[in-house]
Amino acid sequence: MKLDIKKNEVAAFAVGGLGEIGKNMYAVQYQDEIIVMDAGIKFPEDDLLGIDYVISDYSYLKQHADMVKALVITHGHEDHIGGIPYFLKELPTVPVYAPPLAAALIRGKLEEHGILRETELHEIGEDDVLKFDKITVDFFRTTHSIPDTLGIAVHTPVGVIVETGDFKFDLTPVGNQPAPNLQRMAKLGSEGVLLLMSDSTNAEIPNFTKSERFVGHSIRHIFEGIEGRIIFATFASNISRIAQATEVAMKNGRKIAVFGRSMETAIVNGRELGYLNIPDDVLVDAHDLNHLPADKVMILCTGSQGEPMAALSRIANGTHRQISIQPGDTVVFSSNPIPGNTTSVNAVINQLEAAGADVIHGKINNIHTSGHGGQEEEKLMLRLIKPKFFMACHGEYRMQKLHTELAQQCDVPAENCFIMENGDVLAMTENSARRAGHFPASDVYIDGSGIGDIGNAVIRDRRMLSEEGLVVVVATINMQKHTVLAGPDLLSRGFVYMRESGELINQAQRRVYRTIKQTFTNNEKVSEAMLKDAISDSLSDFLFDRTERKPIIIPMLITL
Amino acid sequence: MKLDIKKNEVAAFAVGGLGEIGKNMYAVQYQDEIIVMDAGIKFPEDDLLGIDYVISDYSYLKQHADMVKALVITHGHEDHIGGIPYFLKELPTVPVYAPPLAAALIRGKLEEHGILRETELHEIGEDDVLKFDKITVDFFRTTHSIPDTLGIAVHTPVGVIVETGDFKFDLTPVGNQPAPNLQRMAKLGSEGVLLLMSDSTNAEIPNFTKSERFVGHSIRHIFEGIEGRIIFATFASNISRIAQATEVAMKNGRKIAVFGRSMETAIVNGRELGYLNIPDDVLVDAHDLNHLPADKVMILCTGSQGEPMAALSRIANGTHRQISIQPGDTVVFSSNPIPGNTTSVNAVINQLEAAGADVIHGKINNIHTSGHGGQEEEKLMLRLIKPKFFMACHGEYRMQKLHTELAQQCDVPAENCFIMENGDVLAMTENSARRAGHFPASDVYIDGSGIGDIGNAVIRDRRMLSEEGLVVVVATINMQKHTVLAGPDLLSRGFVYMRESGELINQAQRRVYRTIKQTFTNNEKVSEAMLKDAISDSLSDFLFDRTERKPIIIPMLITL
Repeated sequence: MKLDIKKNEVAAFAVGGLGEIGKNMYAVQYQDEIIVMDAGIKFPEDDLLGIDYVISDYSYLKQHADMVKALVITHGHEDHIGGIPYFLKELPTVPVYAPPLAAALIRGKLEEHGILRETELHEIGEDDVLKFDKITVDFFRTTHSIPDTLGIAVHTPVGVIVETGDFKFDLTPVGNQPAPNLQRMAKLGSEGVLLLMSDSTNAEIPNFTKSERFVGHSIRHIFEGIEGRIIFATFASNISRIAQATEVAMKNGRKIAVFGRSMETAIVNGRELGYLNIPDDVLVDAHDLNHLPADKVMILCTGSQGEPMAALSRIANGTHRQISIQPGDTVVFSSNPIPGNTTSVNAVINQLEAAGADVIHGKINNIHTSGHGGQEEEKLMLRLIKPKFFMACHGEYRMQKLHTELAQQCDVPAENCFIMENGDVLAMTENSARRAGHFPASDVYIDGSGIGDIGNAVIRDRRMLSEEGLVVVVATINMQKHTVLAGPDLLSRGFVYMRESGELINQAQRRVYRTIKQTFTNNEKVSEAMLKDAISDSLSDFLFDRTERKPIIIPMLITL
Repeated sequence: MKLDIKKNEVAAFAVGGLGEIGKNMYAVQYQDEIIVMDAGIKFPEDDLLGIDYVISDYSYLKQHADMVKALVITHGHEDHIGGIPYFLKELPTVPVYAPPLAAALIRGKLEEHGILRETELHEIGEDDVLKFDKITVDFFRTTHSIPDTLGIAVHTPVGVIVETGDFKFDLTPVGNQPAPNLQRMAKLGSEGVLLLMSDSTNAEIPNFTKSERFVGHSIRHIFEGIEGRIIFATFASNISRIAQATEVAMKNGRKIAVFGRSMETAIVNGRELGYLNIPDDVLVDAHDLNHLPADKVMILCTGSQGEPMAALSRIANGTHRQISIQPGDTVVFSSNPIPGNTTSVNAVINQLEAAGADVIHGKINNIHTSGHGGQEEEKLMLRLIKPKFFMACHGEYRMQKLHTELAQQCDVPAENCFIMENGDVLAMTENSARRAGHFPASDVYIDGSGIGDIGNAVIRDRRMLSEEGLVVVVATINMQKHTVLAGPDLLSRGFVYMRESGELINQAQRRVYRTIKQTFTNNEKVSEAMLKDAISDSLSDFLFDRTERKPIIIPMLITL
């Protein structure tokens, strides 16, 4: 895989993130130095049955491992940091540079993968400068739906390449977050930028995205009208939203209970980094909730996208161990459903309302705003940076195309605008840009613990399986003595991500165990087929009860 | 009128333009140097019967005439340049600096007032620097609903004071107009600005105002669906809009006829300055229209605000000498009615539709966009300029107040934000700002040719007169010989601005003359009262027929 990049050229390309929303990974290569920007995952689309994550094919970078000087992170969202452990398994010595909140989240990931100690992870701020042999990297503050976001300027001898990361121009951010550094962007523009690689996510939205502060007004207004408990669901990463909701709740004298693992992590990180100002005595646990009046409580939880295993879904379907819906509860969805999630969000809303809660959701209540800038902000970035060449990043083809039209309206000549695909290489001199070949950059599927062990044929097979995934039950049974010698063990594909569903899996295992035992107790003669049917029926009922899904159950019995 | 401005202080104040929309005039004073910015008029509100214009009270500036070093103009709208002739009558030696289009319009005004020769008028561009003894003035490009707009930076030894002029951030302006110079604004912000005086007009609008280019899309779409003649009405000053409409018309093979004096002037200036690219052979006159197929014609005219004497109103009510509505005509209003004008605009629309035309108007068709930035743009200006102190300019109190709240959201401390009135003086050192007194700055009324000769008592009287104004007819008549020795002359107040209604007045004079003659012919004995009644009735009918207004007619006869 040798690309034709000349000595006087700087190359820019994406390993992931072009023509898609997710798994962002961009890079700049000059002579023997490569700077990689972001390493995200993508959540699989519906037709990838049983796939948990999608990452990029890192083989080009692995082949040039000695040239990769740094992995620089723009912010802490999964589609920008989720791939880091997998990247580091391929290129373990590359130092990682990330702003504080992203660094905190990355640390958690590295720990989980057992590679925290051997990873060189640096916190960076807007004023840091990374100097390599020929390349210098510096930064400018942006705003997004997570605090601590940076745009990156890669200074090479051929010219400056700016990668915006995800951004909106939130001119009145909440809490102690600073506004975007317009002065620094304008200065880059004044001094001359060779290539702008810019976020295309909202290129179809003609407006200027509303400030997070605007949502705060709505939250205040909505909370004032609620007399019972408030159950507030949003993305755990949207610490600004959490800050606004908790602030209003505290002003109204409410205590705050937090449910959902990622939300708990967000509260810890947000308080540590100073983005959340929540005193200890405001935080209460499930037990305390029983002793507080309804109007003195806010429950903060994950599950605003209807994720079946998240706290809110379990509260909705009555399977949450600690919280159940009470009459007078109001559930606030402070998010818009991501397109593929509309059905599951609606299902959760129906369950909540059936259980007696009032539900407030959606744009009509102004209770959410996007983290990505609309057309006016994409144009503003173009006018501030004034690039010679332009590459539309992060977004599907139609968004890239619209973004490219905006670039032309902002005086970038049409022949200087590039719509690329992952693996396409753009090679530039000070005055020219050309497509300089392509390296393989297709999707790599991660399923449970395996990386890239699933090919397209398997995906096709899975599509022919249930739309609900698959659960395999393995047990070793002594049919004479009616005992379970090993297991039952459960393995799921395309159903739940097992690492995050431990409790459900444990319960299911116990259920299967009891079913086997009861089958032996209730019947004089038990055949293998009878056992399998009993297991299937019982487990199927149990899982549907808990998740409203009906995966195919495949019992595999080793009988002695 | 001695104000308490100390030697180490710089003062900023408005002579007009605070707490109102119109007659903008701001000033910076440091020791013995005053820089005046803009000199506009205001159009009178409905309760100022018979007043044609409102200007500011220039007496403070006149008393300090030797200190006034320059009148610097931001752009060519009437509310920024309309007062220049009156200002120069008081302070005739002050040099005027204006961008090219504004300069062209000012030249016309000075000529009309007979003071072009003795006025020192300089054209300025964004890169010009005006150096005075202690003050230096430079500029940054902005965008607005007229080309050639500048923001002003007044550099004093105490600090920099920025006056934005009217602005929006049109990031994709049409024609050959440049985008706002974000880099220069950001640089001012980086270097430090003491005071920002910023346009508050759209402080109540939460959005980012749509680009003029957006209107172009709508015009193209609308024009494509029209098979007959197009009659396109907009503000004559909105040369960008005219550029877009004429460009689409020409692409569709239409010739263009122009009606209305200010529209004719706009076409001349716009072509001269390169903002309008209309070849000679595309422009046709009324005569040519009769020989062209309906789908090869666009008529461009004034009157989009329903002004009774403008071309469109006369076309609508059938009194235009050259154009009448034909079946299949489509009239496009490319403007929104200014609040006070809604009724007259509706009347014109009704007349046009009754005459058989299709009418396209209003926001629903996306055929207009504001020239002023909404909240997001006001915040963007604040974030670019990063001022220590803030004064909300150009807008009514509630807009100034909202704008001040935006400033605080953009990190200007509340105690550094000032809501002032005309004549209030803000005195600043590098670290402090205080209110340093007030000079008289009330409205001065201009009625016909008189300046400031109308007091509030007269206004009250007029309010008690008709809501339609007043027409006085003066004639000297020999009652014996039945001859008209002098006149009839007509004088109107609060009815039409006579200088712009020559044709109507001429016709009315002839009508009165004929009425007098006929009264003598038809009656053996004619009394003065009889003559007066005849004149009143005849003139009243005539004026209502032409203008749909019923002014009080006062015939004054000098009889011999």
